[in-house]
Parts: sequence; C-alpha cells; structure tokens
Amino acid sequence: MNDGHGPLRRREFLAAMGRVAGSSAMLRAMAAMGIGTVAAACGSSSAAPGAGQNPPPPPASTHSPRPGDWPAGIGTGKTVVILGAGIAGMTAAWEMEKLGYACTVLEATARAGGRNRTIRSGDLVEESDTTQVCNFDVDNDLYFNAGPARIAHHHEFLLGYCREFEVALESFVNDNRAALLHSPAAFGGRPQIARRVIADTRGHIARLLAAAVDQGALDQQLSVTDRINLLAMLGDFGDLGAGNSYAGSSRAGFPGQENAGSRQRAEALPPLDLQTLVADAFWQQRQDFSQDLEQQPTMLQPVGGMDRIARAFEARVAQSIEFEARVTEVRKLANGVRIVYRNRDGIDIGLEADHCICTIPATVLRDIPNDFSPGHAAAIAGFQYSAAVKVAYQSRRFWEQGHNIYGGISWTTQDMTQLWYPSHGFGRQAGIVVGSYVFGGAAGVALSNLLPAQRVNTTTTQASNLHPEFAVEADRGISIAWRKVPSQLGAWGISDPGVLLTADDRIYFGGEHLSILQGWQEGAILSAYHAIDLAVGRDTA
Amino acid sequence: MNDGHGPLRRREFLAAMGRVAGSSAMLRAMAAMGIGTVAAACGSSSAAPGAGQNPPPPPASTHSPRPGDWPAGIGTGKTVVILGAGIAGMTAAWEMEKLGYACTVLEATARAGGRNRTIRSGDLVEESDTTQVCNFDVDNDLYFNAGPARIAHHHEFLLGYCREFEVALESFVNDNRAALLHSPAAFGGRPQIARRVIADTRGHIARLLAAAVDQGALDQQLSVTDRINLLAMLGDFGDLGAGNSYAGSSRAGFPGQENAGSRQRAEALPPLDLQTLVADAFWQQRQDFSQDLEQQPTMLQPVGGMDRIARAFEARVAQSIEFEARVTEVRKLANGVRIVYRNRDGIDIGLEADHCICTIPATVLRDIPNDFSPGHAAAIAGFQYSAAVKVAYQSRRFWEQGHNIYGGISWTTQDMTQLWYPSHGFGRQAGIVVGSYVFGGAAGVALSNLLPAQRVNTTTTQASNLHPEFAVEADRGISIAWRKVPSQLGAWGISDPGVLLTADDRIYFGGEHLSILQGWQEGAILSAYHAIDLAVGRDTA
Repeated sequence: MNDGHGPLRRREFLAAMGRVAGSSAMLRAMAAMGIGTVAAACGSSSAAPGAGQNPPPPPASTHSPRPGDWPAGIGTGKTVVILGAGIAGMTAAWEMEKLGYACTVLEATARAGGRNRTIRSGDLVEESDTTQVCNFDVDNDLYFNAGPARIAHHHEFLLGYCREFEVALESFVNDNRAALLHSPAAFGGRPQIARRVIADTRGHIARLLAAAVDQGALDQQLSVTDRINLLAMLGDFGDLGAGNSYAGSSRAGFPGQENAGSRQRAEALPPLDLQTLVADAFWQQRQDFSQDLEQQPTMLQPVGGMDRIARAFEARVAQSIEFEARVTEVRKLANGVRIVYRNRDGIDIGLEADHCICTIPATVLRDIPNDFSPGHAAAIAGFQYSAAVKVAYQSRRFWEQGHNIYGGISWTTQDMTQLWYPSHGFGRQAGIVVGSYVFGGAAGVALSNLLPAQRVNTTTTQASNLHPEFAVEADRGISIAWRKVPSQLGAWGISDPGVLLTADDRIYFGGEHLSILQGWQEGAILSAYHAIDLAVGRDTA
Repeated sequence: MNDGHGPLRRREFLAAMGRVAGSSAMLRAMAAMGIGTVAAACGSSSAAPGAGQNPPPPPASTHSPRPGDWPAGIGTGKTVVILGAGIAGMTAAWEMEKLGYACTVLEATARAGGRNRTIRSGDLVEESDTTQVCNFDVDNDLYFNAGPARIAHHHEFLLGYCREFEVALESFVNDNRAALLHSPAAFGGRPQIARRVIADTRGHIARLLAAAVDQGALDQQLSVTDRINLLAMLGDFGDLGAGNSYAGSSRAGFPGQENAGSRQRAEALPPLDLQTLVADAFWQQRQDFSQDLEQQPTMLQPVGGMDRIARAFEARVAQSIEFEARVTEVRKLANGVRIVYRNRDGIDIGLEADHCICTIPATVLRDIPNDFSPGHAAAIAGFQYSAAVKVAYQSRRFWEQGHNIYGGISWTTQDMTQLWYPSHGFGRQAGIVVGSYVFGGAAGVALSNLLPAQRVNTTTTQASNLHPEFAVEADRGISIAWRKVPSQLGAWGISDPGVLLTADDRIYFGGEHLSILQGWQEGAILSAYHAIDLAVGRDTA
C-alpha cells in the first residue's frame, strides 16, 4: 500500500472520527480525504451544454475507497437489507457478501439493473401512463441501450467488474468526424460535417494567434525562441499555409465529397467563416464534447448491450434478490432497521436487519413512509433529477451506406439534441439509431409529456433536417422518458448529495446520484463503496 | 448520373484523347479530370512525421472511376492476365470478370492478399535471410496485422466490398487519450498521458490568443462583436479559468490518478510548460495525428484480422488464381501480351492474353525481364518504397489492467516510433501489442537490417521506457521488415507514380503505389479501377 497511508489507517481514522465527533465532523474528515465529495459537473452521462466547464475540484486525496479495503469476515453474522437491485445495490450485495454479511436485496420491479436497461424485440417500456412494445427485429445487434450507453476508459471499478465477470467490451464511438453539426440558424441550416468545423476552428485560432505573435503582441510573454517555436507549432496545429494564413485544409475534407475520402482530391474547401463559428456557443461546445474527461476516447460498451453488465451482477447475487418486492416502510430500530415491503403475492412482510443500504432513487424514496432524520428527509424531498428522454428507431443503415458514418453522434440545436449511430454491427443492413437524446431541462420535460407516438413524430421531423432519409427509413420508433418510468422517476440525480453521504443511524444511502460521477454506472459503484464504508465503519467502531 | 457528365462521356473523351493525342496528352487530360493524380502526402498508412502538411491539392474533378461505370459485357471473349493476387489484383479480377473478361491471376506466393497479412499462431514470416515462426497462443483475438491494420471510414470502395462480402467490421482505436507521448529529452523522460498534452496545448493556445485579443492586437481583423464571441469560444476551447487564464483543466486528468477517473478529484494538474511543448515538433505533430483526414475517427478494422478482407476477395476469384506462379518475363505482342511464369512444379509456361494488369511491386518488377517502354522501365527502376517494420508481442494486457489503456497508440521519439495496443478483445487476459511500428527512413532500414531477435531486443528496451512491464511481460516477439519480404521488397510506394499511370501498350499498372492513397488498401482498389479504365478504354476505343 505505497506510502503507508493504507486502507486500515484510513478506516480506523474514520471510525475514530465517527465515535468522537459524530457524523458532521466525520463528513468533513471524509471530504478532506476525498471520499464521497461531489463535483456534479464532472459526472452526467450527457454532458449537458455548459457542464464540465472548470468544476471546482474537490479536496485532494491520495486514496479512494476500494473493494477489498475492508477486513475479511467483518460481516459474519450480520445482516443487511439492500433496497434496489440496480448497479449500486448489486455492487453492495456482491461486495458485502464477500465480507460475510447476509444480504437481502429488495427490488420493486421484476428485473435487476435499474436504469441499466437494454430494449430488444418484444420488450415493454412501461411508463406511468403508457406502455410501448419494442417492434425491432429479433437480432443480436438490434438493441437500444435506454439508460447508460457508454463507459469511460478510466471508470476503473466498473471495468474491473467487466473483466472479473468476463463481460466482453468493444469500442464505443463517441467522436466521429464524419458526423454532423447542425443549427437551423447557421450556414443556411445545412448540416456541417464535424471534420470541417473542427479543422476550420483550429485553422482560425492558429492564424489569429500567429498574426498576433507576428505583430509582437506577445513579446512580453514569450521569448524569441518561444515565438519561433510557437509559430511552427501553430502551423501544425491549424494546418496553416504560407505566411501563416489559413485557406482550408485537407483535414476538412474535399468539396463535393461528403465523407468520401477516396475520390480524387480537389481544391480545399473554403474555411467556414469565423464569425458564424463563434456567434453561437453550440459550435465550440459540441466539438469540445469529447475533450471532456468523461467523454474522451477510448469509450467502451459491452458487446451485445449494456445489460450484459446487469446480467453479470445478477448472476452473482441472484440468490439474494427478491423481485417485485415494493418497499412500503423504512424504519429505524434500536440496533438496526426494519423494512416493510409488499411481495409479489401482495403480502406485506416486515424484515429486520443490522444495516440498510438504500439505493432507491430520491424521487421514489420521498414517498415511502420512513423514519429518516429531518435533514436526510429534506435532502431526499428536494433532490432534483434529469428528465432525459431517448427515442430509438430501427432503420436501414443509410448513414453508413450513403454517408460513410460509422457510429458517433450528430448534434443539433433542435430539441432532439443528439442523434446516435450504432457503434456495432457495422456493415449490416439494419441498425438501431437513437434519434433524440435529450438530456433533460425544459425540452426533456416537454418531450416526456408527449405521448410516445408524438415523441417519435417530433424526433422524426427534427432528425430529417439532418438526414432526409430519416423520415422515410427510420421506423418502429420507441421512446423512454425516465421521469415517467415507475421505480425510477428520473434519469440521474443533479443535486448536491450533501447530507445523504452521511449515515442516518444504520441507514446508508447509495445510487449514482450520491457520487462524483452522477449519471454514470461508475458513480453507482462508488456510492456503493461509500455506503459499505459507512456500514463497515459502524461495525468496526 | 447527376449532371450529365457521366462515365460514358468521360470514358469516350479519354478514349478519343488516347486515339488522337497519345498517352501524354491523355495523362494530362486525366490529371485535369482528377483521375490517377497523386497527392503522396495524403496517403501513407503511417503518416510519417511531417507528412500531411498542406499537400498540394490535385486538380479538381467531380467524378471518380467506379466499378459499374463500365459497359456490361464489354470484356466478353477477351482475356486478361493479372500479375499479383493482392488487393489490387483481386479487385481487378473480380471487377473484370463481372464485365465478361476471362482473367488469370498469377501469384508468386502460396497466399492471396499481398501485404494484407495477418499473422497467427504457427504462421511463418519469411524474409530474404531468415524465417520466424509465430509462437502466439491459438486464439481468435491473438493476431498481428503485419501489413495494413486500419481502414478510414471514408475509404468507401474498400468498405463497400466489406459490406458486399459481409466482412464484419469493428472500430479501430486510433486516438486514445490514455495513451502516452514520450521523449527522453523532455519532461525528465517521463511519458506523458496524451490527454494532458492535448488539454494543456489547447489551454496555452487559448490563453495566449485571448491575451492578444484583450490587448487589442486583433482589433483590425475582428469586430467588437467577434472579439467578444471569440473570447467566449476560447474559454470553451481551452477550458480557461477566470480572466482567461489557464491553470490546468479536468480534461488533463488529476494528479496521482493515471487514467483512473473514478477516484475522487483533486486539484488540477499544473499545466505542462509551453516552452517544452513547442520546443520539439514531436509534441504537436503526434497529438495532431488523428486530425489528418486519413486518420480521423471513425477508423475501422475487420473483426478477426485484416486478412478477412483478403480471404473474402479470394473466395470470389479463387478459380482464377494460380498460386506459386513466379513471373519470369513480361512481353508485348502485336495485339496483346505474353507472360512467362514458372509454376509450382518448376515448369515454365507462356501465357498470352489481350491485356495485362501488372500489380507486382516496382521493387520486384524491376528485376523481371520485360518489354516495358524506356519511360515505364525507368519509373519502375527508380520507384522508392518505405522500409517499414513492425514488431509484435503476446503479453498480459498490463496496459488495460494496470493503466486503463484500451486500444490506441503511444508515441515516442525513440526509433520504435509507435506502440499499438489491440483494439479488440478488451478485458481478456492476453493480447497482441505492436511494440515498434517504424514507418521507414533510416530507422526502418536499420531495424530491417537487424536479425529478428535483435529487432525484438531493441524494441523491448525502447518500449520499456514507456511501460516497464514491457521488459517482463511482452513475449514471443515476432517482426516483419517489409523490404526483406520476398515478392514485396517494401512496405508501400513513396514515389510519384508519373508515367506508370499511363498504359504501356496493353500493359496497365496497378498497386497501392499508383494511387492518391499510397500505403492504403483503398489506394490499391483505386489503382485497379484506373487500370480497368485503361483496359476498357482500349477495348472501346
């Protein structure tokens, strides 16, 4: 354990803090150690506009909670009830059973995985007021990851489970220079190929900075040698021409050759004008998307659908899960917890345990009778969630066959926001395309409030402004509006976790919303580790 | 055919030019139409240092040669002998047989595909003076693409064949922000994670340009509105902080968390200093690599090895290929050609045909007795090829398990140049890593001249400066030095095709070296289309 500040010392320290100073001091100590602190802007799987800009960094630390940091056998003879069989709940069950705890996972639905859901032919999407049936053809490649759909390469704990559980992974294409950027208000409403926007932006930046250097504007800041080197570097950076001018670049593609690179090369495309590129933040923010730490290549996805991960967890903790068990009360006992739930036969059952790890989304939890402290109850009551919506279609792969677009994301200023091309099954005839991925906000709420058929119609109309084929060939549209999905009632948490990172007696909260990676499965895992730390800390106090 | 300038008109025009003005005028006309012209810097699969910088664009054209542009049945009753069963030769055979030509493909080796080669357990790598046996374990994921190893998404003709032949494709990771950039002369010789180099470069560029704008240095060039918008855009571009300063960015990762993004976030890493980043062109050129048109995402590879493409072509033209048929003479007849070859039984055979498409690499062809025109013979004699070398190993995937590197390329200023991590089989225990990919030049020649064991030792030593694990875990090294591979004698052509784009009587030349995409399989296909055009043009003249 490198420098001696190992897990035992950390754990011992936290336990001591908890004993001596109570949860508030413990939380501050944890924050100082970097455990459970939150940088909300770093997380969301959607990277909403403006998110990820210089989030204030949480306090420094050199250690993180890891499975296996806990003492072997610490849980022997102790019981845990875990509420929710999503990624957080199953992670807690898997890790705590390894520590000797006897775990019971109560899952409200008939399915494990929570928002980790992959929709295939015949699957139902049930919302509070509608039910849709997925009409895709039966095929291994024809699936729709309705919840999380990509994994950052540095999400080490999730990827560690994939390795351990032998979940096969493949590359997820997040950044495709053949994809489109589209605004009805710019460039005559014509979608622009990403490569051109990116190349021309770099060209403009490089030529302007080179001009400033040439004028001596930066002589105070840069030595003669640095200026000479910088000019050479800018030539590479922007693909500048003679005299540090920018008149277009082969990086932008060639006229009349939309994503067709093997044709003979003609004159360079004229640069897109700087005025338009800077007039709307859309152009820069969208091309910067894959610069964000969570969105940088390599991105990954499980082969065959994101729910391969849920199935792999489930296979390891299935004996502990009771499905269709709806929690109706969360109560505190003198030395434990008492959970009341209604089972699949409609019978109410009371279950007592030494600990409770509660991963029920706050939007659902707030309506379950409970003994939470006023602070915890208030945080749960006020917790905000994204109203993200996705709309998926089956279609001929016109984007590959006609436009050489293999995976990736097109962006538009229209409400639909994103259009996702599948990152797998390249070259096959049919594929699943996501025609809207609205992260939330007013547009998400508005789309959620439409009937599924209206969501599809709206999306088809907007997506056809990027690809006219969409109106003709994208078919069998199916949507999910997470805020209307029972037992979820939201896509991901967007509030500050605050007091919910602290134990409420013997109840510990988990779920992606209580992590530095809100909206990510890695965040759900981190939250589970944090909850385990709290429980184990209590048992070692 | 869109605007009426269809293929027939083009072909008729060329045929007329050929009749009236002879081959030189025809070549000029072709160049003016954009057929067969060369922009060498656009092509090479290796993007050697400095390549891709503002290549002079070839003349404009709106049409390209495509299969199917030729009149149906034009070849009925006519014969073609095709020299070489690489991608160019098999493309020519496949397309010309569809036109009715009776094709014979003479292949010197026992294998179709040419430089499209995938090395697996038990395979031999035979060079002029050595033979290596591949000792990888037997496994679908454990292969080494010794020749081409990636496909640009806009290589539409190659990808069209993959679709037609049902060759499954997957994403090839060219740009991985978790990979390394390394120079012994910078940053104390410590490898730098790509994300940090890229983020800090953007930060420096943005802060300097913002400072210049603030000083009014660009007031002549930019309106007040543009300046305001530009400053906002630079904030996004460089992830600038208050006052348009740059003090590091979450895009660069966090201290002590090499590619481990799910740990608690600490203070930002301090920016790498601008002086070092601009002092050596290495830093900018390598981070710009995937900006090049041929290297931009999405890049692709066939599932299971690049030779899936060779096998798919072979399956369609196998009846026309004679293997182990070594051409010994290329002769002209009054109305055709006569090829002499030695067959696998050592018997010399003379074969006459109406046309010859010769795809033998110039390095090999120059030593075969022939009747070529002095101009063609001189071009063949002087054609230069890259001396690229690759060295591959089997290893535990320490790069994934220890460093969260999934695919992509690390770069170093050492002779080994590139280190490739596999883009497939993520999460498995073993993988094939390419420890040297030297594009050619003096370093390529030097490495070629070493014995295979020495190449492996040299590579291991250098690669261990990027990953100390390499010395311990990368094993079973196997190398290919293309300049020493019989029947190839070079990795890819780097000279101007010049006169070789013109017919030499009834002999037409093909191969990747005679295309605008030298070093790419798409170039081989384009060269085949060009040769077919010449032959068909002759038959329709």
